[in-house]
Amino acid sequence: MRRTGADLDRLAETESIFALANGWVGWRGTLDEGEPYGMPGSYLNGFHERRKLDYPEGGYAFPEASDTVVSAPNAALIRLWVNGEPLDIRTGTLRTHERVLDLRAGVLRRDTEWISPGGHGVRIRSTRLVSLPRRPVAAVRYEVEPLDGPVELRVCSDLLANENVPQRSDDPRAATVVQDPLTAEARRSDGLDGVLVHRTDRSAQRVAVAVAHLVDAPAVVAVDGDCTPDRLRLTLTGPLAPGERVRLTKFAAYECAPVDGTPPDELADLVVAEAAAARADGFDTLLAAQRAALDAAWRTADVELDGDPELQQAVRFAIFHLLQAGRPDGDRTIAAKGLTGNGYDGHVLWDTEGYVLPVLTYLAPEVARSALRWRHAHLPEARERAAELRLAGATFPWRTIGGRECSGYWPAATAGLHVNADIADAVLRYVAATGDTRFLAGPGLELLVETARLWHRFGHRSDDGAFHLFGVTGPDEYSALADDNVFTNLMARRNLRGAADAAERCPEAAAALGVDAAEVAAWRAAADAMAVPYDHERGVHQQSAGFTAQPEWDFANTGEDDYPLLLHHPYLELYRRQVVKQADLVLAMLRCPGEFTAEQKARNVAYYQPRTVRDSSLSAAPQAVLAAEVGHLDLAYDLFAESVLQDLADLGDKTADGLHLASLAGAWLALVQGFGGMRDDQGVLSFDPRLPRRIDRLAFHLRWRGHRLRVTLTAGEARYELPDAGPEATVEVWHHGERLRVGVAPVTRPMPPVPDAGPEPPCPPGRRPPRRA
Amino acid sequence: MRRTGADLDRLAETESIFALANGWVGWRGTLDEGEPYGMPGSYLNGFHERRKLDYPEGGYAFPEASDTVVSAPNAALIRLWVNGEPLDIRTGTLRTHERVLDLRAGVLRRDTEWISPGGHGVRIRSTRLVSLPRRPVAAVRYEVEPLDGPVELRVCSDLLANENVPQRSDDPRAATVVQDPLTAEARRSDGLDGVLVHRTDRSAQRVAVAVAHLVDAPAVVAVDGDCTPDRLRLTLTGPLAPGERVRLTKFAAYECAPVDGTPPDELADLVVAEAAAARADGFDTLLAAQRAALDAAWRTADVELDGDPELQQAVRFAIFHLLQAGRPDGDRTIAAKGLTGNGYDGHVLWDTEGYVLPVLTYLAPEVARSALRWRHAHLPEARERAAELRLAGATFPWRTIGGRECSGYWPAATAGLHVNADIADAVLRYVAATGDTRFLAGPGLELLVETARLWHRFGHRSDDGAFHLFGVTGPDEYSALADDNVFTNLMARRNLRGAADAAERCPEAAAALGVDAAEVAAWRAAADAMAVPYDHERGVHQQSAGFTAQPEWDFANTGEDDYPLLLHHPYLELYRRQVVKQADLVLAMLRCPGEFTAEQKARNVAYYQPRTVRDSSLSAAPQAVLAAEVGHLDLAYDLFAESVLQDLADLGDKTADGLHLASLAGAWLALVQGFGGMRDDQGVLSFDPRLPRRIDRLAFHLRWRGHRLRVTLTAGEARYELPDAGPEATVEVWHHGERLRVGVAPVTRPMPPVPDAGPEPPCPPGRRPPRRA
Repeated sequence: MRRTGADLDRLAETESIFALANGWVGWRGTLDEGEPYGMPGSYLNGFHERRKLDYPEGGYAFPEASDTVVSAPNAALIRLWVNGEPLDIRTGTLRTHERVLDLRAGVLRRDTEWISPGGHGVRIRSTRLVSLPRRPVAAVRYEVEPLDGPVELRVCSDLLANENVPQRSDDPRAATVVQDPLTAEARRSDGLDGVLVHRTDRSAQRVAVAVAHLVDAPAVVAVDGDCTPDRLRLTLTGPLAPGERVRLTKFAAYECAPVDGTPPDELADLVVAEAAAARADGFDTLLAAQRAALDAAWRTADVELDGDPELQQAVRFAIFHLLQAGRPDGDRTIAAKGLTGNGYDGHVLWDTEGYVLPVLTYLAPEVARSALRWRHAHLPEARERAAELRLAGATFPWRTIGGRECSGYWPAATAGLHVNADIADAVLRYVAATGDTRFLAGPGLELLVETARLWHRFGHRSDDGAFHLFGVTGPDEYSALADDNVFTNLMARRNLRGAADAAERCPEAAAALGVDAAEVAAWRAAADAMAVPYDHERGVHQQSAGFTAQPEWDFANTGEDDYPLLLHHPYLELYRRQVVKQADLVLAMLRCPGEFTAEQKARNVAYYQPRTVRDSSLSAAPQAVLAAEVGHLDLAYDLFAESVLQDLADLGDKTADGLHLASLAGAWLALVQGFGGMRDDQGVLSFDPRLPRRIDRLAFHLRWRGHRLRVTLTAGEARYELPDAGPEATVEVWHHGERLRVGVAPVTRPMPPVPDAGPEPPCPPGRRPPRRA
Repeated sequence: MRRTGADLDRLAETESIFALANGWVGWRGTLDEGEPYGMPGSYLNGFHERRKLDYPEGGYAFPEASDTVVSAPNAALIRLWVNGEPLDIRTGTLRTHERVLDLRAGVLRRDTEWISPGGHGVRIRSTRLVSLPRRPVAAVRYEVEPLDGPVELRVCSDLLANENVPQRSDDPRAATVVQDPLTAEARRSDGLDGVLVHRTDRSAQRVAVAVAHLVDAPAVVAVDGDCTPDRLRLTLTGPLAPGERVRLTKFAAYECAPVDGTPPDELADLVVAEAAAARADGFDTLLAAQRAALDAAWRTADVELDGDPELQQAVRFAIFHLLQAGRPDGDRTIAAKGLTGNGYDGHVLWDTEGYVLPVLTYLAPEVARSALRWRHAHLPEARERAAELRLAGATFPWRTIGGRECSGYWPAATAGLHVNADIADAVLRYVAATGDTRFLAGPGLELLVETARLWHRFGHRSDDGAFHLFGVTGPDEYSALADDNVFTNLMARRNLRGAADAAERCPEAAAALGVDAAEVAAWRAAADAMAVPYDHERGVHQQSAGFTAQPEWDFANTGEDDYPLLLHHPYLELYRRQVVKQADLVLAMLRCPGEFTAEQKARNVAYYQPRTVRDSSLSAAPQAVLAAEVGHLDLAYDLFAESVLQDLADLGDKTADGLHLASLAGAWLALVQGFGGMRDDQGVLSFDPRLPRRIDRLAFHLRWRGHRLRVTLTAGEARYELPDAGPEATVEVWHHGERLRVGVAPVTRPMPPVPDAGPEPPCPPGRRPPRRA
């Protein structure tokens, strides 16, 4: 991923795209010299401050405070002065300026030739990495050399706390920035090394960042250290002649802990040791380890898409960011923007279980497990919240960092109870793909049981015996507080049955949670009786009860500038009309495919496609999958393109705040579940592949029950194999309804012709994604 | 209305009960000496500040700012020091302390004998009034005399701006207090007179208050003036021997204007002249005029209720506060708390048209007209709001002072579109009662037309031709965003038909508003097709579509401390259950009685009574009326008592913030529409009287088409007469289905026996109003 030139108007967007992370530390792709910047950010997974929420009219159980991500001290900064003039690409002459995100090496490289306003030229090259194998470590190697004549240099390597972060917009989806969130607790500076320890006020978290430097410079260059509570600086000064070079390598280590946990000095010792160890090993060792880790990851994660080089590259970009967003160890999850920006206040939303984990489960199942363990670690808060809401079991937050509900608009949040079923679904999916019975019997079961209890309590038996979920908000945020949202109801059914199955599979663990046969039977009965609103006249499912009787949206009087609708129309209008922000009923057909006949799917796609405006980046991918399933392959491909280009093309004008990880994950779903036709909701792995014209060959891999399954699709045939497996090992997969046993030897099957799906259902006027010729 | 003793725990409540107002100036019943206080307040109708609203998650068309009532400078203060010790009823010995709100004289009298901690006794008598006939004028006469021996007195008469107002609670229904809202612009002080001029910052309103004093004291008493930007003080000091007396009379005049309207000096001149004129006339003249004005008002407004002296007094208290809340001249409305407190931020809510005007229309129709003119004056803001909401016509604010929407929680506000129909209903009711065709052809028609346009645009024709109003919130705030709320739909029908009738009656005025025959026909068609959800199985109307299919509230697990439910349960639970905060379907039966059969009314009362928790003070009165109509007269009487005692018994623990004018109005409705059985929705005046056992005799008056109709009910007979009419004049009234022509000579008819209504429907457990034995 390469960008050339200054591109000053898109700094923040570029910072998101060039962000580096390892699931623990995240550095936005700011310039080494810090300025100009769009929105600087250096994050630690889970590190946040709390801020009070004020309501014009409050209400019971409205959260009183919200978590908001704040930057940890930024160790990426290296500033440069050339003959007294600061390197700033807005001044002087930028002869060349290129930045490359190397998706295989896992580094961000920069190569700049700059002539200062005074006429002194330098070349700067830097390489930055956030170490995948070494959790606390990030590093940058920075080189300067004169271009034409001798120069006087000053190079400052900074570790900077409380970096200024601009408040970007009034858009409710953007972040609320806490200024100066960190209070200095301790600092040490010793020659080339140093450490800063800070804490947050209200969330009571402590963060320590250490830096260790290596200097490779002519002897005349002087080295000097300087330390204030919020800044640790190493300065190199001196003349540099043509042919000479200054190379500064900085190794940083990040840790955080609760204030009442590790004391400041101890935390400082920890990161000092980590930074020193990284320096002892050297930058080249970090590079090699980074490459090795990515090589291993890409073996499973890579997708080959022949026939569309732009999207091939975009898919790899998407997967790269998914891979670096999470951690395989511990219990950390993945926020909606990962560690790439402060959008949505850095919150974790249902995007994680709804979009990201359904990919990582097959590419990096340990990361999926870590994220589910994080949910499990926050069961106490979810139980408290359920009690506060006068419900049962657990109610997970709609948005959070620290585990407590942080949403300030309950109809789109608290009422979005489906997040609980999404978590249960992710558990079931993870267990099905990995066979991880230990996880199932432990955190998995507890998550399933507590969410099942929620649904059982929340539901209502009507006179006719049907089990209803009234007054909830489904995925589509242009509806709210509706009855019997099909997505929610079917996911709750899956949740209830999954909990019942798991309880019977792990009877002792279930008993320890107080589950008895009567409770299991009650769950099954509720699931069996679940209401699923269907409009018999129109032959389509209703997104929620009554949906198809609502007025239509007035698309004829809706202009291009009216999108996203939520910024130009009141909820009063949006909620009561048949206008859909994002796949909802369509997502239900993706998650619970067995609940719909093929004919229903085709009719539902035809009905909801023209009513779905895709004002959410979560929409295109599921729509792509279902369009592919019902045979509209060109439409599916264009929707896939929208999903995968969300950030590279900044389609929503929001990439500046961080990447849309769910949309990037959706790109993989569109390929693998859409064109690969992969489904696994019944615990078996099936493929109904069908390729659009634009794809000559599509190859991808899945981790399934400990194996690496490779699937290669061309217009003519589908090929299944376990390239790493021993001669005896096989897995069962289904290909268009035929059961195959697949081992190390490839099994091939012809691709059936795609049946004629009839005319493509229109998108809302002006909203069709561009046709990729 | 008399209260004896200090009652320090209920100061704020007492201040509300003893508030004086004339629809323009309002003084809370604070003590003359200002302290101790509960919540001081001196208000001008419409005088407010704007404050920014912050939302954790904003949305399109969420109001960015809100009006909030602020106190005008307080001229009621007279402080006293006795031998250097301040008069404070919390100190020394309070030998006697009595305050009387004289409902006939329209004054608040105080009589206190106090012994200072140093043992010096004084008697203080004061009389306070806010002049009904003289809009800007309020006055207080204050007398001190020694009790036993000589005393050294200091009496300070203050006019105080930016008086400290405590923030009373976190309850969302309380006020948000703006501290120091007034900026001084000008002041003058001259001997016994003075004036302060201030302005607000953001609402840009200017207020001027002048005081003029009369001093009647022994010659040895010295008089001194003092003036700072926020305080104007007149001080009397000197010795007072037994038998001597200091009498200080203060005349105050209040005006306000937009900052870009009358300049400060001009406004000052205005109030100085008013205060001086009042002084020239003298306090006794003000008293006499006050008495005369009230005598005239009581002739129509008085209700005689024999058999229950406590409630007789309470009813007169209620009516007194209704009479002083509004003004007959100009275009001023009546806020939910009138001018008695800052609850609900001093906002005007639908309480005005829904409860207060349906009383004042018959007692003081000029006041009702003034309030409707206020709505009309704010049509521009309502049109703008409709455009912002992408609707048509006018959308009146849910809560406001200055005319713009100020609500911070849209599901209970913006979605409560019924306020528009309530305004239309008040117009129709006013025109029917008065025959004021000039008003109809002017402001009335425009209000009717613009609200009809709203409904026509908002509604949706379903496939079966029915006209639906989806996604609205009816009166019951424990439901929201429901479809086809019966109250809203029937009131919208009335609105549409009323607009159509009026347009046909005033063709030229209608044409000037762009109304043509097609539009009128469209209104009628929409009205005719209006959906009215009915549960055929249960034989009851559904409050909104699907209501009777919702889960029931779990009353078995709801304790006494759980009320009001909104402070202890999330909307998520409240909204989706069959639990009703306040009369909604029942109110529909009161407002649109012709839309229901007698059998339906009885079944609906039986159905909704046990599901209505009356967490709103708006509920008891309509429930009383319908309980009376269907024959549960004891229940009706107890509900009437709840309504009339709302503030005197502080039933909702909210009287401190101001009186519940809607509930006080409801008391009259309970008597006249409940036991009198008065209905007028069809443009004719009918009575189906039925008295509960507790009432021996009930007499009341109505202004109807320019006449004063007196109705006297006893167990045996109903008597109708026009006591003031000439020999020829008659009006048509109906008595239990019989048409009568009533003139100056009484017409009597027997009271038919009350049919057996069967067992009384229960209230929710623990929620029955106490039985009045």
